[in-house]
Amino acid sequence: MDYISHIQQALDSLDWKRQPLNLYGPIAYALQSGGKRLRPQLVLMAADLFGQVNTDTTAAALAIEIFHNFTLLHDDVMDNAPTRRGRPTVHYRWDDNTAILSGDQMLIEAYKQISYISSQCQSEALSLLNKVATEVCEGQQMDMDLERLSYDKVDGETLGTYIEMIRLKTSVLLATALQLGALTVGAPSDDCSNLYDFGINLGISFQIEDDMLDVYGEEQVFGKTLGGDICAGKKTYLLLTALARADWKTRKQLLDLLHDDELAKEKKVKEVKAIYDSLSVRNVTGDAIKTYTQKALSALQKVNGKPQEKQQLISLALQLEQRQH
Amino acid sequence: MDYISHIQQALDSLDWKRQPLNLYGPIAYALQSGGKRLRPQLVLMAADLFGQVNTDTTAAALAIEIFHNFTLLHDDVMDNAPTRRGRPTVHYRWDDNTAILSGDQMLIEAYKQISYISSQCQSEALSLLNKVATEVCEGQQMDMDLERLSYDKVDGETLGTYIEMIRLKTSVLLATALQLGALTVGAPSDDCSNLYDFGINLGISFQIEDDMLDVYGEEQVFGKTLGGDICAGKKTYLLLTALARADWKTRKQLLDLLHDDELAKEKKVKEVKAIYDSLSVRNVTGDAIKTYTQKALSALQKVNGKPQEKQQLISLALQLEQRQH
Repeated sequence: MDYISHIQQALDSLDWKRQPLNLYGPIAYALQSGGKRLRPQLVLMAADLFGQVNTDTTAAALAIEIFHNFTLLHDDVMDNAPTRRGRPTVHYRWDDNTAILSGDQMLIEAYKQISYISSQCQSEALSLLNKVATEVCEGQQMDMDLERLSYDKVDGETLGTYIEMIRLKTSVLLATALQLGALTVGAPSDDCSNLYDFGINLGISFQIEDDMLDVYGEEQVFGKTLGGDICAGKKTYLLLTALARADWKTRKQLLDLLHDDELAKEKKVKEVKAIYDSLSVRNVTGDAIKTYTQKALSALQKVNGKPQEKQQLISLALQLEQRQH
Repeated sequence: MDYISHIQQALDSLDWKRQPLNLYGPIAYALQSGGKRLRPQLVLMAADLFGQVNTDTTAAALAIEIFHNFTLLHDDVMDNAPTRRGRPTVHYRWDDNTAILSGDQMLIEAYKQISYISSQCQSEALSLLNKVATEVCEGQQMDMDLERLSYDKVDGETLGTYIEMIRLKTSVLLATALQLGALTVGAPSDDCSNLYDFGINLGISFQIEDDMLDVYGEEQVFGKTLGGDICAGKKTYLLLTALARADWKTRKQLLDLLHDDELAKEKKVKEVKAIYDSLSVRNVTGDAIKTYTQKALSALQKVNGKPQEKQQLISLALQLEQRQH
């Protein structure tokens, strides 16, 4: 089954040419902007693994995709991000109020999709969306809290907090996408739970890979200037690993570099990278990515289902691990 | 049944002392701030009319109250309002990002309450919340659109747009509160639909009364300085009525007054009020309030249910019509 066109067709069937235009126009804009459509794909793939994609599966895929784009809309306001997927963000193209209200409406539209799911699994789907939506908000709050945390307070526990933050902010939605898809075709609960674990570990590995690519990716393939996270002083897996591994002197060196607003960007990136290298941050991070991918794959191993569809999920996991952008 | 203490007890049973504190703290703050608790009261009253308040009724009442407070949180960000019910708003006490994210979580918490409703009416309750939530967002967007509309473009149709806006922004939530309450005790659908009409008309009359009190209320009882809407240039029922009734010359006079930023507040209020008086705006508005209250009461007349509980709803309607604040 061609997942991407199935999702695109489902998205196209939604009518946003409704009044008031200032409420629904930005929703259409946000949902047209493409992206990998990874999450709704996972819904469909999980359903395919145990049965046939049905109207419930499609509604669940739409709920997950609309919910995901709602979080992007509000996150972009909170981060004051000017662009998303190469286009102006909603709050830049319109304004903050529009992004807030249209975002709210998108969250409601996600729940509308749940209400279209047939009665035998609607209630469970509702509980799953409630749970994951709560966790994503908690993850976003942890992210903001972590951003405000002064570097001096970063200690051995911060890396654990970071993993918990990305579990909530990213992983649970991938995991729930799989779980929802499986639910819509009546998969056994053991399989749902193993699929969920697959999603959690896949998500964590995906996010750490993101941090890795920002520093050690190939510029042309990555599509943006390397070292953006370093310049922004973002508390990534790499930085937190470096701070956890550094001795007192190196830690001070690293913090001085991060606090130095005068230093040219390229120089800052180069020097921070040199410290990362001296602390084997690339290897340690690479190992972490491999470990989470392995955990994901062993959870998937325990899942029953059609072999060909299972192979697709394995390929996806390996593809995400080895991606360059 | 003591509705207010039942609601307070239900609200107190919710646990907001959860991590991350920056997400849940503002929710606790927003829900502690009191208010009339009119909407959850309507849920309980409607249930009482046909049966006994049960755990589904309480969950529905909480869903409605949490949803209502979610809209206040985000509206206050959008309007940049500094205070609400005599206390700093969430975005003033914390910041915009906190108000956005905690507001999102409140919307999710409203849906969580729906998921606690038992299976025989959960699905219908979900659809009702989806419908009303959408309408409230549409109403808020219409309100923002109306605010941006230049006075020169206000014409005979604007009053109709205004009524539709307050129907969506205020009335539908009152109406749905009643409908949900009735649903949780299995009331007949004819009765639900008449109760809904009662709520719609009650809400419109309530909102027009609000506009009226701002100009013709008694200052001590009203609790804030009169004429606030006039100074803010708000397009209220009174102003739109005046603009619809004024001849060319009076219209120009009124618009000049509204555009005059130099004029002292008291003088502006006095002169605008004089124009209102010359156009019988007070009488016309008073008639509108009476008409909507009458419509509300005749819809209620058609509703079956226990006489004593019905009398309580009638009293509430008359009380709201004759209120001074």
